[in-house]
Amino acid sequence: MTIRRTAAGVEILDQTLLPHETRMVLLGDLAAAAEAIEAMRVRGAPLIGATAAYGLALGVAAEPSDSGLAEAHARLLATRPTAINLRWALDRMRARLLPLAPSARAAVAWALADEIAAEDVEINAAIGRHGLEIFRALLAQKPAGSTLNVLTHCNAGRLACVDWGTATSPIYQAFEAGMPIHVWVDETRPRNQGASLTAWELAERGVAHTVIPDNTGGHLMQHGLVDVVIVGTDRTTADGDVCNKIGTYLKALAAHDNGVPFYVALPSPTIDFTVSDGVAEIPIEERSAREVSHMSGRTADGRIETVEILPAGAKVANYGFDVTPARLVTGLVTERGVVAADRAALVAAFPEAAGAAGLTA
Amino acid sequence: MTIRRTAAGVEILDQTLLPHETRMVLLGDLAAAAEAIEAMRVRGAPLIGATAAYGLALGVAAEPSDSGLAEAHARLLATRPTAINLRWALDRMRARLLPLAPSARAAVAWALADEIAAEDVEINAAIGRHGLEIFRALLAQKPAGSTLNVLTHCNAGRLACVDWGTATSPIYQAFEAGMPIHVWVDETRPRNQGASLTAWELAERGVAHTVIPDNTGGHLMQHGLVDVVIVGTDRTTADGDVCNKIGTYLKALAAHDNGVPFYVALPSPTIDFTVSDGVAEIPIEERSAREVSHMSGRTADGRIETVEILPAGAKVANYGFDVTPARLVTGLVTERGVVAADRAALVAAFPEAAGAAGLTA
Repeated sequence: MTIRRTAAGVEILDQTLLPHETRMVLLGDLAAAAEAIEAMRVRGAPLIGATAAYGLALGVAAEPSDSGLAEAHARLLATRPTAINLRWALDRMRARLLPLAPSARAAVAWALADEIAAEDVEINAAIGRHGLEIFRALLAQKPAGSTLNVLTHCNAGRLACVDWGTATSPIYQAFEAGMPIHVWVDETRPRNQGASLTAWELAERGVAHTVIPDNTGGHLMQHGLVDVVIVGTDRTTADGDVCNKIGTYLKALAAHDNGVPFYVALPSPTIDFTVSDGVAEIPIEERSAREVSHMSGRTADGRIETVEILPAGAKVANYGFDVTPARLVTGLVTERGVVAADRAALVAAFPEAAGAAGLTA
Repeated sequence: MTIRRTAAGVEILDQTLLPHETRMVLLGDLAAAAEAIEAMRVRGAPLIGATAAYGLALGVAAEPSDSGLAEAHARLLATRPTAINLRWALDRMRARLLPLAPSARAAVAWALADEIAAEDVEINAAIGRHGLEIFRALLAQKPAGSTLNVLTHCNAGRLACVDWGTATSPIYQAFEAGMPIHVWVDETRPRNQGASLTAWELAERGVAHTVIPDNTGGHLMQHGLVDVVIVGTDRTTADGDVCNKIGTYLKALAAHDNGVPFYVALPSPTIDFTVSDGVAEIPIEERSAREVSHMSGRTADGRIETVEILPAGAKVANYGFDVTPARLVTGLVTERGVVAADRAALVAAFPEAAGAAGLTA
């Protein structure tokens, strides 16, 4: 479990300690929830959304006035500017709470946060069922007895969600259904979420996998060693452009160049119908140089140590995300099925959300 | 300087200490030269060749007899058995020295070692002059006052050579000519040659640069932040396919997708006219998992420490190189000028080498 309600508040699995330590941390107030999102103790769009919802509940429980609600909303919204789920969860909470008397807000906030978390589990289970059908069809094209080789980037796993994950949901469902499956896990520099988190969670469930440097995927695809790529997304535009962890675009190019299907698994709230051209319109977060210049790990005698791997004083650029144009995306695996990465298909599949942004079929 | 003659013998820059310490080490005798190659204090095919030549000179200076010459040749050849330049330099030295009277050998050995080193400098300087013309033409297309942004992968720098480097040679020449130039340095996992070596050598000369994770280049190209990519190569086929450090292919795809020119700098001896289809024919070396799972760097208190960054027991794949198909290569920058990445152009530019492999224009 990545997040859970307890008597004292909300507990999260502190993902900054993975893969070396498994520790649940109590979020006792709004500040702790905001810090947990900012410091990436929780990460992944759905889990950020759920944590923000619980964070708002913590804030409103302490200060239920209109200004308390507004401050909690603003504080949490400022934690990760690129994360669309963050705004979606916070706006949904605020819209429901604002009309209520302040004294009634805390109980409703907790219930709605629980609902947002439960919805995430159900959405991801549905994504997994649809993705599993893709995996079954691809495996059926291979000789009997073959293993399906899946490549994924970053961690769109159950560690990014309340459970199942998005990109990993079909993997877990295939594994549970007994399908022979093997996952190439991109290390995902600079924060190494693949090496640290995806490898950790696949190992914990017993799914066969191999960690590779981010540089490796193209070579594997050239040699027929990848049957399908599946990744998550932080934000998908109305035209099907996919904003995801930096480096995703490079894997999409390699998949396209080698005829390997490239799927993106996403809960529909990550579709932003107000944005069309992802490359031009989505602001890309720049993060700390230290994520690139320093690396943490276990020493031979078991201590966790941080070392600087660059020449002293080296200048670094650290963009968190990139945008994969829709033309490189084979399909979007959503809770309502597999949808083409284009405006007409997305509007047809999600008419309510599209309509709310002024788009109609 | 990676290697230089002194009154006491030969000095090398000990590259095993980079980027954390800059130390020149005296090679006072044959044994020291052999140890320096074996321990990878010097690395890169051209620099290994030059160091071996000086090592043989040291050996012959101490023991100029036929048996002394044979022993020095054998000792040095055993240091890195697969290094082509090593054998080439040693055989060339032995062929010149063996017919001479022992008393005449030392002086000729020193002169020939100097000549081998000088030839490497001249080849790389020529590559730099041709590359500089490309850079000048690209900068001329930008508004006045612009900086030329160059992206490179791995280290095809002067640290691999006696001076200049291959991919870095046009960069240094542009810098010395006063051109405003900035280099995006791919970290180059798993061995981090970009972050450790290219960043160090550019900093030492004062060339503006920024280290980026390998995942970043595509995003930069989408946003017009890269004017040209230039990399080295370990082996180029008769059809212009380029085998280079793993991940090069992904950058070539991104360059192609964004209309960014993609050049490969190479001394002509790295063209292998016996191979055509690089992806199908070139065997790719698989290297130690430890290069991926462990990382070395400086601790906060200045010690050099190695840490494990993967979950304990994680399986790893570590391919050393990939192949960039010729269709993605804008041009090959050689000591004879810029040559198209195709068979006709390569055979026309290097008729002797092509002819030796049975290829004619």
